[in-house]
Amino acid sequence: MSIEAAVADLRLLPYEDVGFAKIDHHRALRDALPEVVLAEGKTPAQTAEIAAKIAERTGRLLITRADAACAEGVLAALPNATYHKTARAITLEEEPRRKDPGVTILCGGTADLPVAEEAAVTAELMGHEVERIHDVGVAGLHRLLDHVPALQDARVLVVVAGMEGALPSVVAGLVAVPVIAVPTSVGYGASFGGIAALLAMLNACAAGVSVVNIDNGFGAGYQAAVINRLALNERPD
Amino acid sequence: MSIEAAVADLRLLPYEDVGFAKIDHHRALRDALPEVVLAEGKTPAQTAEIAAKIAERTGRLLITRADAACAEGVLAALPNATYHKTARAITLEEEPRRKDPGVTILCGGTADLPVAEEAAVTAELMGHEVERIHDVGVAGLHRLLDHVPALQDARVLVVVAGMEGALPSVVAGLVAVPVIAVPTSVGYGASFGGIAALLAMLNACAAGVSVVNIDNGFGAGYQAAVINRLALNERPD
Amino acid sequence: MSIEAAVADLRLLPYEDVGFAKIDHHRALRDALPEVVLAEGKTPAQTAEIAAKIAERTGRLLITRADAACAEGVLAALPNATYHKTARAITLEEEPRRKDPGVTILCGGTADLPVAEEAAVTAELMGHEVERIHDVGVAGLHRLLDHVPALQDARVLVVVAGMEGALPSVVAGLVAVPVIAVPTSVGYGASFGGIAALLAMLNACAAGVSVVNIDNGFGAGYQAAVINRLALNERPD
Amino acid sequence: MSIEAAVADLRLLPYEDVGFAKIDHHRALRDALPEVVLAEGKTPAQTAEIAAKIAERTGRLLITRADAACAEGVLAALPNATYHKTARAITLEEEPRRKDPGVTILCGGTADLPVAEEAAVTAELMGHEVERIHDVGVAGLHRLLDHVPALQDARVLVVVAGMEGALPSVVAGLVAVPVIAVPTSVGYGASFGGIAALLAMLNACAAGVSVVNIDNGFGAGYQAAVINRLALNERPD
Amino acid sequence: MSIEAAVADLRLLPYEDVGFAKIDHHRALRDALPEVVLAEGKTPAQTAEIAAKIAERTGRLLITRADAACAEGVLAALPNATYHKTARAITLEEEPRRKDPGVTILCGGTADLPVAEEAAVTAELMGHEVERIHDVGVAGLHRLLDHVPALQDARVLVVVAGMEGALPSVVAGLVAVPVIAVPTSVGYGASFGGIAALLAMLNACAAGVSVVNIDNGFGAGYQAAVINRLALNERPD
Amino acid sequence: MSIEAAVADLRLLPYEDVGFAKIDHHRALRDALPEVVLAEGKTPAQTAEIAAKIAERTGRLLITRADAACAEGVLAALPNATYHKTARAITLEEEPRRKDPGVTILCGGTADLPVAEEAAVTAELMGHEVERIHDVGVAGLHRLLDHVPALQDARVLVVVAGMEGALPSVVAGLVAVPVIAVPTSVGYGASFGGIAALLAMLNACAAGVSVVNIDNGFGAGYQAAVINRLALNERPD
Amino acid sequence: MSIEAAVADLRLLPYEDVGFAKIDHHRALRDALPEVVLAEGKTPAQTAEIAAKIAERTGRLLITRADAACAEGVLAALPNATYHKTARAITLEEEPRRKDPGVTILCGGTADLPVAEEAAVTAELMGHEVERIHDVGVAGLHRLLDHVPALQDARVLVVVAGMEGALPSVVAGLVAVPVIAVPTSVGYGASFGGIAALLAMLNACAAGVSVVNIDNGFGAGYQAAVINRLALNERPD
Amino acid sequence: MSIEAAVADLRLLPYEDVGFAKIDHHRALRDALPEVVLAEGKTPAQTAEIAAKIAERTGRLLITRADAACAEGVLAALPNATYHKTARAITLEEEPRRKDPGVTILCGGTADLPVAEEAAVTAELMGHEVERIHDVGVAGLHRLLDHVPALQDARVLVVVAGMEGALPSVVAGLVAVPVIAVPTSVGYGASFGGIAALLAMLNACAAGVSVVNIDNGFGAGYQAAVINRLALNERPD
Repeated sequence: MSIEAAVADLRLLPYEDVGFAKIDHHRALRDALPEVVLAEGKTPAQTAEIAAKIAERTGRLLITRADAACAEGVLAALPNATYHKTARAITLEEEPRRKDPGVTILCGGTADLPVAEEAAVTAELMGHEVERIHDVGVAGLHRLLDHVPALQDARVLVVVAGMEGALPSVVAGLVAVPVIAVPTSVGYGASFGGIAALLAMLNACAAGVSVVNIDNGFGAGYQAAVINRLALNERPD
Repeated sequence: MSIEAAVADLRLLPYEDVGFAKIDHHRALRDALPEVVLAEGKTPAQTAEIAAKIAERTGRLLITRADAACAEGVLAALPNATYHKTARAITLEEEPRRKDPGVTILCGGTADLPVAEEAAVTAELMGHEVERIHDVGVAGLHRLLDHVPALQDARVLVVVAGMEGALPSVVAGLVAVPVIAVPTSVGYGASFGGIAALLAMLNACAAGVSVVNIDNGFGAGYQAAVINRLALNERPD
Repeated sequence: MSIEAAVADLRLLPYEDVGFAKIDHHRALRDALPEVVLAEGKTPAQTAEIAAKIAERTGRLLITRADAACAEGVLAALPNATYHKTARAITLEEEPRRKDPGVTILCGGTADLPVAEEAAVTAELMGHEVERIHDVGVAGLHRLLDHVPALQDARVLVVVAGMEGALPSVVAGLVAVPVIAVPTSVGYGASFGGIAALLAMLNACAAGVSVVNIDNGFGAGYQAAVINRLALNERPD
Repeated sequence: MSIEAAVADLRLLPYEDVGFAKIDHHRALRDALPEVVLAEGKTPAQTAEIAAKIAERTGRLLITRADAACAEGVLAALPNATYHKTARAITLEEEPRRKDPGVTILCGGTADLPVAEEAAVTAELMGHEVERIHDVGVAGLHRLLDHVPALQDARVLVVVAGMEGALPSVVAGLVAVPVIAVPTSVGYGASFGGIAALLAMLNACAAGVSVVNIDNGFGAGYQAAVINRLALNERPD
Repeated sequence: MSIEAAVADLRLLPYEDVGFAKIDHHRALRDALPEVVLAEGKTPAQTAEIAAKIAERTGRLLITRADAACAEGVLAALPNATYHKTARAITLEEEPRRKDPGVTILCGGTADLPVAEEAAVTAELMGHEVERIHDVGVAGLHRLLDHVPALQDARVLVVVAGMEGALPSVVAGLVAVPVIAVPTSVGYGASFGGIAALLAMLNACAAGVSVVNIDNGFGAGYQAAVINRLALNERPD
Repeated sequence: MSIEAAVADLRLLPYEDVGFAKIDHHRALRDALPEVVLAEGKTPAQTAEIAAKIAERTGRLLITRADAACAEGVLAALPNATYHKTARAITLEEEPRRKDPGVTILCGGTADLPVAEEAAVTAELMGHEVERIHDVGVAGLHRLLDHVPALQDARVLVVVAGMEGALPSVVAGLVAVPVIAVPTSVGYGASFGGIAALLAMLNACAAGVSVVNIDNGFGAGYQAAVINRLALNERPD
Repeated sequence: MSIEAAVADLRLLPYEDVGFAKIDHHRALRDALPEVVLAEGKTPAQTAEIAAKIAERTGRLLITRADAACAEGVLAALPNATYHKTARAITLEEEPRRKDPGVTILCGGTADLPVAEEAAVTAELMGHEVERIHDVGVAGLHRLLDHVPALQDARVLVVVAGMEGALPSVVAGLVAVPVIAVPTSVGYGASFGGIAALLAMLNACAAGVSVVNIDNGFGAGYQAAVINRLALNERPD
Repeated sequence: MSIEAAVADLRLLPYEDVGFAKIDHHRALRDALPEVVLAEGKTPAQTAEIAAKIAERTGRLLITRADAACAEGVLAALPNATYHKTARAITLEEEPRRKDPGVTILCGGTADLPVAEEAAVTAELMGHEVERIHDVGVAGLHRLLDHVPALQDARVLVVVAGMEGALPSVVAGLVAVPVIAVPTSVGYGASFGGIAALLAMLNACAAGVSVVNIDNGFGAGYQAAVINRLALNERPD
C-alpha cells in the first residue's frame, strides 16, 4: 500500500456523531472489537443509546465499569446482551465466533477478581478461550505450584495482583511467553491505591513482563487477545 | 506433563556458582536467550569472567549497560563479541540464526536512541529482524505519517519516547497489533527522570499498549521477541 | 504615567465589602470581566447575593462550578442569567457585545466536555466567538486530521485532555499560534486525578504550549481571550 | 484550503536526515524560527554539524543549553554566531530583522537570570524587542512597585521565579495581558528542584497565568513571541 | 531548679483518666490553655464528657473541629460555652481575662476564613486581642497595601492562604516581626489539598516565616499567642 | 502613619544596583540585619564584591553556604570578617553589639551541627546570645533529660533534627515557649533528603512548633532572633 | 528433612475451595492461627460463610475490619464468637489456650486505639497475654516515664502512633528488645494518611525498630506473637 | 524496680563527650553492642578517634558505611580490627564470644550483597551465627526451592531485595518465624532508589514481615539479633 493511500485511508474511516460523542465504527474492522463504552460517568440512558448504535452497526458490544443500574438500562434496550456482574461488564455478540485457546488469566486474591474478570470477558468477546487460575497469591506458593503445567501450556498470560504485586515476577520466571501484568488498587495504607503493585510490576526482575494501568482489566485482556491472535496467524483486517 | 514432574523439573534446572553470582544456564533453554549480564555495578573483570562462562556454555551472550571500559575488557576475553556503542550492549552469537521479520522499533527523538537500540540488539540476538523508525516525535506528525504503511506491516511494535511520552498512544491508534511502550528518562524539569512519560504511557487512551520500566530497552526488546516468536508458531523449548 | 500615579491608582481601585467577601469591581474595568464567582463551597444564597451585587454594578456576571441547586438560586434572583449545564457555569450579559472570532477549543474525549465548555463560556462572555472541536483524541488520528484546516485558521487554541494528555503536543505541532493546554482529571489508576496529563503537557515536545491547572477551564478561556484581544489590537482599559 | 490539501501539505513538509537526526526545516517557515538545537547530551561536534546545516538553509540559528565547550565548537564552524553566556545560548541571524516591542521579562532573583535570558534571547531571535526587569522578588515589594508603569505597557509578560514562585500571581494582578510563568529550579530543601514554584504557578489565584516546564526559558520566550506576533497582526506563514 | 527536681516534676504533673482518654490538666498551668479537645472522630457525647471534666477543673475550654451536632451536645452540657460557627470551635471562659493586643491574622480569600478564625479564637482564649484582615490575596495588591500601617503595628502575624500560598512571602517582606504561615487546603487540581501552598510557604524568599501544618489554625493561633506573651514580658507559669 | 505615607515609604527604600544584583540596604534598618548573601551559586569574586558593598554601607555582614574557597576570597577583601567553618558562614560586625540571652539551639545528632551552627551564627549577629545543646537525639532520652532546666529557661528554642525528626515534638512538650523546628537532610533511604523529618515536624503532636525549610538554619536563627527581640521590648526600627 | 520432601510437602498442604475463595487450612498448623478473614469488601453473608468453614475445621477464627453489620451476620452464624468493637475484629476460640506474657502494646493517642486493639486481639488469639499502655504520646513525656519499668519488662513491644510517629524512636531508646512500629492514618494535612508517621518510623534513630504497613494492627500483633513464641522456646508446628 | 529508680537510672547512664560528639557507652550494657559509628560524613581521623574511645572502653566496635580510606585510618589506630569489604563495615571484638545459631540472611541478587553482609556482620558481632543464602530472586524459583528446608530451620530471617522487593512475601509464606525485610536501592527507573521495593515489602500479603529502612542492613541485623537472643532465653542486661 502506498503512503498516500494509507494516509488517505486513515481520513476516511467511519465514525458517527451522536451529539455528545463520536462513535468510532472503524475499530470493529481494525481491532476485531467495536468501540468500547466506559459506563463510568455516563447515565444509564446515555450508555444505552451509545450501546444500541454500536450493536446495531456491528452486532457486537462491550461496556466496562457498568453498575447494576447501568446494566438494567442497557438490557432493557438490548435484551440479548449479558451482564457479567463480577466483571462489571456488559457484552453482546449476535453471532458468537469460535473461541481459540491460548489466554490464561491468574489473580492473586479474591479481591482482584473484578479486574481479572474484566480482562477475561474482553478476551472472550475478541474470540479467545480463557483459562482462569484464581487466588494463587505468592504467600501460598503451594497453590501456585499446582498450576505450573497449566502455566506452561499458555501462549500469553494476564497476571492480576494488588498489595505487593509480586505475582508477575514469580510467574514470568516459570514461563517463556509474554506476561501482561495488571496492578490492582486492592490493599490499604502504603499500597496507595495500587501504586505499590504498579511499581513492583514495572521493576519485575523477570524478563517478559509488561504492565498496564492500575485496575485496567480491559487493557490487559485486549493486549492478550491481540497477542494470541498473532499466534493463530491471523492478521488484523 | 504431571504436576509432580513439572515441579521436580523446576528444581533440577541447571545453574552454576561462580562465587559472587549464580549463573542461570537453563534460561538459554527456556528463553532462547542465556542469562543476561547487567554490566552496571560490576568491574570489567567481573563482567568478563561471567561473560566467558556463559559464552562457553551457550555460545551466545548479551551484556547490557556496558561502557567503553567494560567493552574493552570483555572483547579482550571474547574477541568474537561485538560492542554496540549506541545501545551500550555487547553480543556474541557463535552460530548466528535466521532472523525473522515482524518487530518494528520506533523512537521519538535522537536522545531516545540508546534505549531503542538496546531493544533492537536484544530482539536481534533472540532471532528477529528489526525495522527501525527513528526521530518521529508527535510534534512533527508529518514525519510519522510517512511511516504509516510500515507500521501497519509490523507484527509487534516497540515505541520508545521521553518527555511527554505521547508516541505510543498515537501509534497504537494506527495499528492493530501489540505495542510495547518504553518511557525514557529523556527530558528535564517536570519530566522527573521519565515519570511523566511513564504515566502518559500507562494512561494511553489507545488500547493495545503495555509498558515496561523507564529506559528498559532490554525488557521491551525481549517482550517483542517472545511475542513475535508466537506469531512464528514457535513454542519455547 | 508616572510611578507615583501608577501606585496611587492601585490603591484607589474600587472594591465592595459584603461582609463575608470583598468584591473587586475594578476587575471589570481592567479585565473586560467582572470578578468571577466560584460557586463551590458557597451556599446558593451566598452565591446569589454576591452575583446580584456584581450584576447590578457591571451588568455582567460569570459564576463557575455551579450545580443545579446553585443555578436555581441564582436564576431566581437574576432571571436574565443563563445556566450552562455542561459547563456548570452561569452567565449574564445585560448588553451583549460583538463576538470576535479567533479562539478554538478542542477536547480529547466526551468526558473532557465540562472543562472545555467552561473555557468556551468564559471566552464568549469576554467577547470572543468560540469554535468547538470535540472528541478528537490522539488514538483516533483520523478524527483530528479532518480538522487541520480549522486548526490552522485559529489565532489561539485551548486544548483540553485527560488520561495521557498528548493532544496539545500533537496540535501544537500542526499550528504556529499559542496553545493553552488544560489537563483534566479524567482517567483512573495512574492518571492520579490529572497529574499524568499535567506532566505530559508541561513536557510537551512541541513549542508553543503553556499550561493551566488541572480542570481549570476558566483559566484557559480567560488566557485565550486576553491573547485574542491582543490580536484585535485592543488594549485593556 | 481543503482538508485533503492540508493533510497532503503536512506530509510534504521538508526535513533533512543527517544520520543521527532528522532536521525539520519547515519549522522556519511555520514558526519564524528554524528547528532549535538542544546542546545538552550532544558532543560539540554533533551540535556544530547540525547547526551548520540549519544555518546554511535558513540563515538563522538557535542553540540552547550550550556550555563553553559547545560554544567554542560552534563558533569555530560559524564565526558569525553569538554566544550568550548567561543564557547558555548561541544565536545566528544572517539578516537581522526589525525587533518589535511588546515582550517584557521579569525575574525574581539573580539566580533566575539564566532562565530569563534564555527566554529573552529566544524572543529576540524571533523578532521581538525585550524589556528586562530583574531581581524583583515579592519579598521586596518596593522594587516591584517601581516597575508598575512598565508592566502595564507590555503586551505579554514572561515571569521567571524559583523558591516559592509567587511573582506571577502578584504581577498578573497588576496587568491585564497574558503572563507566561516559568518556574526555576532555584531553591533548596522543600523546593524539590522547582516543584514548589511550579505548583504555586499552576495555582496562581490571579487569572491570566499559564505555565511552562521548570527552567524552560526557551518555551516561555517562544510562547511570548507567538503571542506578541498576534498583536502585530502578523499571521504565521 | 536542679535537674533532679525538674525531671521529678515532669513525672508528677497531673492527668486524669476518663477511660477512653487521659486528660492532661497540667497544660492549663504550663500553657495558659487547658488540654485542647479535637472533636473530629469523637461522638458529641464523648466530646461533651471530656469538655465537662476540663471545664470543671480549669474553668476554661477549647474544642476544635466541632460541627453543629457536636456544638449542640456540648452546649447542652455547658450552657455558658460559645460556639464559633465559622471557626468550628467551642470556647468557655468562666472568668474572662484581659486581652492584650499584638496579634494580627490575615487571610487570602474568604474560603480561608475557617482556618483564620480557628487561629483567632485560639489566641483570644489565650488572652490576646486579635486584629483581623481578611480577603487580601496577592492578586489584588491594592487591597493589601491599604493595610500596610496596620501590618507594621503588629507584634506577631498569622498569615493564612491556600492556592499558591504566596501571601506570607509578600507580608514578611513588609514587616520585621515573626510571621506564622498557615497553608490551607483551599484550591483544586494541582493544589493537592494544600501541598502547593505548604511548599510555597516553606520556600518563602522572605526571612521571618515559619510554617504550621495544612489547615492548622489552632497551631498558628497558639504559636502567635506564646510569642506575643513573650512581648508582654510574661513568663509561662 | 497614614496609608499614603506607608506606601510611599515602601517605594523609597534604598537599594543599590551592582549590575548582576540589587542590594537591599533598607533591610539593615528594618531587620537589624543587612541583606544576607547566599554564597552558593556565586563565584568567590562575586560574593566578595557584594560583601564589600554591604560591609561598607552597614558595617555588618552575613554570608551563608560559604565553602573554603569563598571564605578565602571574602577574607582577602574583608580581613576583619570571620569564617565559621562548621556553620559554613562568614560574618563581620564592625561595632559588636551587646548580646541578649534567650535563644537556645538544640540538635539531635552531630551530623546536624552545620545547620544548627548556621542558626546560631545568624542569631548571634542579630544581637542574641545563643545557648547550644548538641547531640540530644530522642533515642537517648537520658541525654535530653539532663537539659530540662536549661530548656525551661529559654525564651525561644530552635530544634534541629534529621532522620525521623522527632525532637521538636518531645521538646515542645517540655516547654511553654515557641519552638522553631528545622528538619535536616541528614539520613538515608526513606528519609528522602529531609522530607521524613519535615513531615514529622509539621505533624508534631505538641503545640507551639512551627517549621522552616529543610536545612534552613539561617531562617530558624532569624525567626528566633526576631521573637527574642520582642521579649526584650525592642521594636524594629 | 530432604529437599524433595520439603517441596513435596509444600504442594500437599490443604486448602478448600468455596467457589469465590480458597481457604488455606494449613496455616492453622503452621502459624498457630487459621487463615485470617478480611471483612472489608465482603458482604456479611460471604464473611459468615467463610468464617463458618474455618471455625468448623479449626475451632478458631479471626476476622478483621468487621463493622457492626458484619458482626451481626457472623454472630448469627457463630453464636460463640466475640465482637471486639474498638478493634473491629471478631474472634472465636472453641478451646481457649493458656496466654503467655511478654507482649506489650503502646499507643500515642486515643485515636490510635482501633489499630492498637487489632494488634492486641490478634496476639491474644495466638496465645499471648497483652499488656496495654495507652495515650502516651511524646508530647507528654511524663505520661510515658511512668511506664518505664513496665516497658523494660516486656519481651516484645508493639508501638502504635499517628501524626509525627515519634513514639517508636523514644521507646526503642528505653528498651533492648524488638519494637514493632505501626504507623496510623491518624492526623490531617501533611500527615498524608499516615505517610508522615510511616517515614518517621522507617527513619527511627534508635536501633531495634521494624515497621509494618499503615494501620496494620493485625500484622504487628502477628509479628509480636511469633517473636514472643520464640522466647517461649516453642517451635512452629 | 520502682518508677523513681527507673527514671533516675535513665539519667545516670554513662556517656562521654569528645567535643564533636557524645559517645553513648551505656548501649554496650543495654544492647550487647557498643554505640555504632556511621562512617559516612566523617573524616577517617574523626572515625578513628571515636572508634578508639569505644574500643578502649568496651573492647568491641562496629563501624558501618566505611570506605577503603576510612578502613585504612581505623586499622592504623586499631590493628586488631577487621575490615569487611563487601559489607563496608569494620569490627573489633577483643574477646570473641560464642556465636549462637538461628539467624538466616537471604538476598535476591548479587547487587544486594553489601546490604546483606552489613546485616550479617552486625548479627555476628552481637553473638549470632549467620546462615547466608544468596542470589535467590523470585524470578528463579528453583533456586529458592533448594533452600526450603534451611529456611524452615531458622529462628529469624533477614530478607534483602531490591527491584520489585517480592522475596520477603514469598519467603514469609514458607516459614512461621519472623521475617525482617530490607529493601535495597538496587534497580533503576521506576524503582526510585528503593521505594518500589520498600512499598512492596510494607504491603507483603504474607503475615510475619516487618520492614526496616532502604539499605539499612545494620538495622535488620540488629533486629534479628535481639529476636534470636529472646529465643536463647537471654534477657538484655
